[in-house]
Order: sequence, then C-alpha cells, then structure tokens
Amino acid sequence: MQKKQFALSVKVVILNDAGQCLLIRRPSDCQTNPGQWEFPGGKAELNERFEPALLRETLEETGLNISLTRVAGAAEYELSALKIAYIIMEGQPDSGEVILSEEHTDFAWVNSGEILSFDLAEQFVPFVKSYFKLG
Amino acid sequence: MQKKQFALSVKVVILNDAGQCLLIRRPSDCQTNPGQWEFPGGKAELNERFEPALLRETLEETGLNISLTRVAGAAEYELSALKIAYIIMEGQPDSGEVILSEEHTDFAWVNSGEILSFDLAEQFVPFVKSYFKLG
Repeated sequence: MQKKQFALSVKVVILNDAGQCLLIRRPSDCQTNPGQWEFPGGKAELNERFEPALLRETLEETGLNISLTRVAGAAEYELSALKIAYIIMEGQPDSGEVILSEEHTDFAWVNSGEILSFDLAEQFVPFVKSYFKLG
Repeated sequence: MQKKQFALSVKVVILNDAGQCLLIRRPSDCQTNPGQWEFPGGKAELNERFEPALLRETLEETGLNISLTRVAGAAEYELSALKIAYIIMEGQPDSGEVILSEEHTDFAWVNSGEILSFDLAEQFVPFVKSYFKLG
C-alpha cells in the first residue's frame, strides 16, 4: 500500500479586540468536513512565501486584512489519499467587516468558552482545547 | 518601522526504536544559535512539496532516510530581520547511520529525560517541554 504523504496547510485564529475568535462554516455539500466550522486559511501554494500566502487566503475567505501576531499551534488530519499537517497562526484584524467568499456559508465571532459548542472540524478540537486552555 | 514577516521552517523529531531523539549541533561560528543543539530540517523551499522537502533536508543533514509519523507541534523564533514559524513533525529512521553534513558539528541520540540538559536552541524549549511532557 502506498504510504500517505503529508501536505501542509496554514490556518489562522483571528482574535478581535473583544478576544473573540472568527470561525467560518464549510458548505454542507463539501467533500471534507461538510457543514463544519473551521479557521480561515488553506493549502500552502507553491511559489508563494508563507505570510503573504496566508494573508491573501484570509482576505479572499473573510474580506479581512489581518496582521499575524504569533504561532498558535499545530494539528493534523488524515484524508483518504493524504494527510494534512496544519500550522496554525494567531492574527488580528486590521480593518474591515467580514465578507465571505463562496467557499463558506456562515461566520461567527465566538468567545473562547463557547467554541466547543460549535460543530468544529474535528482535526482542530485538540488544538482548540490546548490553545484556549479548555478542559 | 517595517513589520517583520514570518517565514516557515519545517523540523523533525526523529525517534529511534529505543525512543531516543536525534539532536544535531550547530557550528560555533553560526550567526544564529551558535553551538546550540537543534532538530534536523530547515526552511521550506519554493517549488517543493512539504514532505519531500523535509525528507530531502533530513537526508542531507543526517544521512538518514526517515518516515514521518505525525505532527509533533509548533514553535517560533524572532530574528533581527524576520520571524520564523516552525512546524515540527515526528519521524522514525528507516535505515542508515547518522552522517552529518558540514552544516552541523555533532549529533546525539538523547533520552527524553536528558534533552533539557543539552544547550538546546531556545526557540525549541517550550515545544520540547510540552511534547516530551517535561516539567
């Protein structure tokens, strides 16, 4: 059996001034994590530097210009054909209102204590518990 | 003042059958972390996929062919001109003896309980404490 390779994905926890975190929801007809909530960001593309790639992807998905503040953590997920290694950054919005692309159907600014009540894509649950220091 | 951008670096904790972890030592005339111990891996290069890039870099630095097993964690480091975001994988050697390149001066297979007695590059200390569950 062919060993599954790891691909890299870069995500961002965007925190607003009230300390709320932006979650965005995947369409219900998605192949992976249908209808589940996740963080902005995505596959790291070739020929792009790390930070500009994440800022561009975040702007496309959320309409927000953000600044990255620090490294928040890591996660992983096994798909049928490959595995995803996530590096998750922390950022803050510089400007703007959230305007979703067609890639997502809903968004919410969520207090850390409420984040686990959302149907979060399961690969992010261990990260969220550790990052937000939730039981 | 120009904001420092994050660049991405990919590292690997290689564990042998005895559960020891491979550390490699930077030359004492290095600009960053001189004489300190670190994990194999390095900057993610353009036009390379994530896993092949890390396997190639590890082979160059250590002479080892490895397999990646899982995502181990993340770290960050601030240099004078930029910040580094590290994603750290876990791997195991498939074959071979350690043969260092000119980029490093020494290596050691280290039990997890002894790892903090090495002069580890400081950016990896929080990760090491968490990953190896050290006080």
